[in-house]
Amino acid sequence: MATALQLRLFAAAATKPAFRHTSSFPARTSSTQLRRAFSVSSEQAMLSTELTEAEVSALRANKDRLAQDLHHACQWGYGIRWGDGHTDTGMQRLALSQEDKQVRDWFIETTKSLGCKVTVDAMGNIFAVRPGRRADVPATFIGSHLDTQPTGGRYDGILGVLSGIETLKTLNDMGLETEGGVGVVNWTNEEGARFPISMVSSGVWAECIPLEKAHALKEVPTVASLPTASSAPESMKSALEKIEYLGSVPCSYKETPMAAHFELHIEQGPHLITAGQQVGVVTAVQAYRWFRLNILGRDTHTGTTAFEHRADALYAFARMMVRAREVAASHGCLASVGIIEAKPGSVNTVPGTVSFSLDIRGPKTELVQVVETELRKDFDTIAAEEGKGIGKPCRVEWTLDFDSPAVNFHPECIECVQQSAEAVACDAGVADPKSLVRTIMSGAGHDSVFTSKRVPTSMIFVPCKDGLSHHPEEFCSADDCARGTSVILQAVIRYDRKRFSA
Amino acid sequence: MATALQLRLFAAAATKPAFRHTSSFPARTSSTQLRRAFSVSSEQAMLSTELTEAEVSALRANKDRLAQDLHHACQWGYGIRWGDGHTDTGMQRLALSQEDKQVRDWFIETTKSLGCKVTVDAMGNIFAVRPGRRADVPATFIGSHLDTQPTGGRYDGILGVLSGIETLKTLNDMGLETEGGVGVVNWTNEEGARFPISMVSSGVWAECIPLEKAHALKEVPTVASLPTASSAPESMKSALEKIEYLGSVPCSYKETPMAAHFELHIEQGPHLITAGQQVGVVTAVQAYRWFRLNILGRDTHTGTTAFEHRADALYAFARMMVRAREVAASHGCLASVGIIEAKPGSVNTVPGTVSFSLDIRGPKTELVQVVETELRKDFDTIAAEEGKGIGKPCRVEWTLDFDSPAVNFHPECIECVQQSAEAVACDAGVADPKSLVRTIMSGAGHDSVFTSKRVPTSMIFVPCKDGLSHHPEEFCSADDCARGTSVILQAVIRYDRKRFSA
Repeated sequence: MATALQLRLFAAAATKPAFRHTSSFPARTSSTQLRRAFSVSSEQAMLSTELTEAEVSALRANKDRLAQDLHHACQWGYGIRWGDGHTDTGMQRLALSQEDKQVRDWFIETTKSLGCKVTVDAMGNIFAVRPGRRADVPATFIGSHLDTQPTGGRYDGILGVLSGIETLKTLNDMGLETEGGVGVVNWTNEEGARFPISMVSSGVWAECIPLEKAHALKEVPTVASLPTASSAPESMKSALEKIEYLGSVPCSYKETPMAAHFELHIEQGPHLITAGQQVGVVTAVQAYRWFRLNILGRDTHTGTTAFEHRADALYAFARMMVRAREVAASHGCLASVGIIEAKPGSVNTVPGTVSFSLDIRGPKTELVQVVETELRKDFDTIAAEEGKGIGKPCRVEWTLDFDSPAVNFHPECIECVQQSAEAVACDAGVADPKSLVRTIMSGAGHDSVFTSKRVPTSMIFVPCKDGLSHHPEEFCSADDCARGTSVILQAVIRYDRKRFSA
Repeated sequence: MATALQLRLFAAAATKPAFRHTSSFPARTSSTQLRRAFSVSSEQAMLSTELTEAEVSALRANKDRLAQDLHHACQWGYGIRWGDGHTDTGMQRLALSQEDKQVRDWFIETTKSLGCKVTVDAMGNIFAVRPGRRADVPATFIGSHLDTQPTGGRYDGILGVLSGIETLKTLNDMGLETEGGVGVVNWTNEEGARFPISMVSSGVWAECIPLEKAHALKEVPTVASLPTASSAPESMKSALEKIEYLGSVPCSYKETPMAAHFELHIEQGPHLITAGQQVGVVTAVQAYRWFRLNILGRDTHTGTTAFEHRADALYAFARMMVRAREVAASHGCLASVGIIEAKPGSVNTVPGTVSFSLDIRGPKTELVQVVETELRKDFDTIAAEEGKGIGKPCRVEWTLDFDSPAVNFHPECIECVQQSAEAVACDAGVADPKSLVRTIMSGAGHDSVFTSKRVPTSMIFVPCKDGLSHHPEEFCSADDCARGTSVILQAVIRYDRKRFSA
C-alpha cells in the first residue's frame, strides 16, 4: 500500500513527471487536488533523508519544462542558424556581454522566485541557494556556466545551469526538503573565449588564480566581439562593472563554501553517442596546457625574395603545426591551434611575425610534459631551418598561459552519480541497464576542475550529436538533457543523504 | 674651346653637381655670376635636342639634395625604428591616410614651385608636368608611388617619385628645355596594402581595372590601420574624398596621355647587391596571380575531439602551405601566404574556417598556370583527407583576385636606360664599366606593368641592402639613389631626343 509520502511523490509526478513509478494514478488529476485529497499541505516538508532508496531512484526531472527553460534562456545571444526549427541556432553569448547580462538577470529572477537566496561575488559568479533544514552547513551545488564560445551551441554549460534550475523546480514541486541546502552556481567566463583564461572565475573562487590577475584580463577579439574589442579592449573588471555584476562578496571558497559540486555537461566527444550509451560517469579530467607562441622571422617582399632568402614566420608555423599533430598523436595526446595572427598582414609581404595558441592535452600530466618537451625541440629545429640561408633564422618564443594537471574526481561524488545513472538507465527497459552507463574521462576542462581542488566534485556526461561542440550545431536531445538532469537531481539528494543519514 | 652651351652646363654644375665634367672652373663661383659673365639669361633656353651625346652622358643628379628631399618626404608616416640615426626608421604610410595626404600636399607644392602644372584624377593619381617646348604632345613621365606597406621602408616607391622631383630640379638648375614636357606621377595605392588591389590606380588609368571596382574597394586592417578599419572599413572612394584627393579629371590614359613612363626602383632582391653591380636595366616583369582561398571545415572542441574526428581547417592550411612551397620550387616559381585568418579564433576551438591569400609568381605566365593547376589538385586532396573520418571533409574555395601576366618592356625605353646606365657607370672608374650594369627581370609588380600596356615603358633597378624590402630596414645608399636618378634623368632626355631629333 502506498505511504502518504509515496502518494505525495505520485501527486508531483502527475503533472510534472518527476517520478516514473508504474502507477495507475489518474494522470490528469492535478497536484493540488491530490494534495487536498491526502491532506498534504504544500507547507508540509518531505525530507530527503526519509526517502527510501527506491524513492530516490524514482526521482525524475521534467523533460518538457527543462527543454522549454533551456531554449528560453537561449533567446539572449542567439547565434548562427543551421536549421529551420525555432531552436535550430547556435549561441554567441560572450562572457559579460549584454546578452550575458540578460540571461544572468533571468537566472537571478528565476532562482529567487523558486525561493533561493542569491549572492554575486567579485568575479560575477552567481550563487543561488535553496535553503535546507540546517542553516549551519554549506549547500551542495550544481554548477556550470551560461557564457558560450563565439560560435558555440545551446548545451555546453547552459545545460548544466539549467539542470540546476530544473532540480530546484522538481524539489519545489515535490515539497522535498534537504538537510543541507541545494545551490545552483553560474560561473563567469568559463569558456575563456572573451577573457583568455578559461574557468577563470571558479579558479579565483578556488584561490588558484589571483583576483587581480583575473580582473586585469583584457578581452580578445572574436567573431562575436564588439568592434571595440580590438581598438579599446575591455578589462574583465570594467566589463563586470559595466553590466553591474561586480559583486560585493569576495570570490573565495572560504566566503562561499560548498559541500560538494556536481556538474552535468554534454560529452563534447563521440564515445557515448557512438556506443549508444546514455550517461557518462566522469571520474577524471585530462591534463592540459595552453601556450602562446611567437615566431620571429623577417618581413620581406613575396615577389622578389627566393625561398632560400626568406625567414618566413608563417611557413615555419605551418611546418610546426603539421609536426605538432605527429608528435601528439604518437603519445596518445592532442595538440591544437585555435588562434593565429600573422603580421604585417599584406598579400605581398612575407610575414615576419606569427603568434599562435597551442593547446596540448593528454590523459596524464606527464604525457603532456613529454609532448611539450619534444615540440620545444622540434620547433627550434624548424625555426632554425627557416632563414638559415640569410644567416637570420626564425626564432620561436613560448609563454605558458595555463596549466591544468590531470584531475581525479571525488569517490563519494562519483558513487552518487554512478548509482543515480544506473537508476535512471532502468527507464530504457533493456536487459542490462548498467550497459547504458560508463565511466569516462573528460577531455575538456570544466569549472569542476577548480571546485575539485577544494570540495568533493564529480561530473555527469550525456551524449551530443556527432560528439560535436563549440559549434552552432552542437545538439543534445531533450531526452538526453532530461536524463542527465534526473541523474544530477538524484546525485544531489544521494549526497545530502550521505552527509546526514549517518 | 667651350661653347656657350657647355659653359652654361658648367655653371649649373658649379653649385649643383648635375655634371661631372673634369673642369677647372672655380667651384665657388655662383651660377648667377656665371650666367651674367657669359650673358646667359635664365630665360634663354638650352634645348635637349641640341646636346651632344657626351653632354647627355655627363648629366648627373644632385646626391645630397636628393637624399635630403627623400628623407624630408619620409617625415610623414615615420615607421618602426631600427637604428640610432635620424633616418633609421621604416615607413608606415598607408594609401590615403592622413600621412599620405601630407606627403601629397608637399608633392604638389614642390612640383608647382618647380614650374609644373598639376592635375589630380579620379583615383587620386597626381600628375605634375614641367612643360616642354611643344604643347601639342604628351610628356615623358617618371612615376612611382608614395604609399608604403604597413611595415615598409623609405625607398620602395618613394625613391621613384623623388627621382622625378630631383630630375625636375636638375633640369631647372640647368635651364634645360625639352621638346615634350617632363612629368612626374604619384600613383595611388600601388602597394595594395590598404585597399587590396596593388597598382590599382595605374590599372584604372590603363583602363584595365574599372573605376567603379576600384572606388568600391574596402580597406583591410593592417598593423598600421586605424582601429576603425575592421569595424567600419572605408571605401577607396570615401577615403579619397576624406583627404580631398578625389580629382575631377577622369582616370584614363586617354585623358592624361603619356609619351613614355620610366620608373626607378630598388631591386627588392639580392642580385645587384650580391654581384656588386650598380644598375639593373629592367627588361621584363614576372607573371603573378593573387588568390583568396577559404577552407571550410568544422568548429569543434580541442580537448574532446580526436584527430580522426576533426575537420581542422587550420591544420589543412598548414599542410597546404608546406605543399605550396614544394610545388612552386619544383617549377622555379614562388608561392607565398601573406594574410591568414582562422575563425572562430578561440584557444580551445578547432578552427572551422580559414581564409588566406596566396601569391604565385614565375618568370612565365604559363609556369604560374602550371603551379596553380597542381596546387588546386593537391589542396583538394589535402582538404579531402582532413575530416574524412567523420564523413565531413574540409572543402577549399579559390577566388582569383588579381592576374598579372608576364610583361616585356619597350625596346626603345630599355635602350635609353641601357645607354644612360653605361654612361653613369663610367664614374666608378673601373676598366669595364658595362660590367656594373645588367639586364634584370622584376620579381615584383609595379605601376610600370600597367603603363606598359598603353605607352612605352621601362624600369631601372638600384641595389638595396640584403635585397630586403617591405621591411623597415629596407635601405638604399645615397650613392645608389643618386646613380639611379642620374640614369632616369638621362633616360628621359634621351627619350625626348629620340622623339624629336629625327
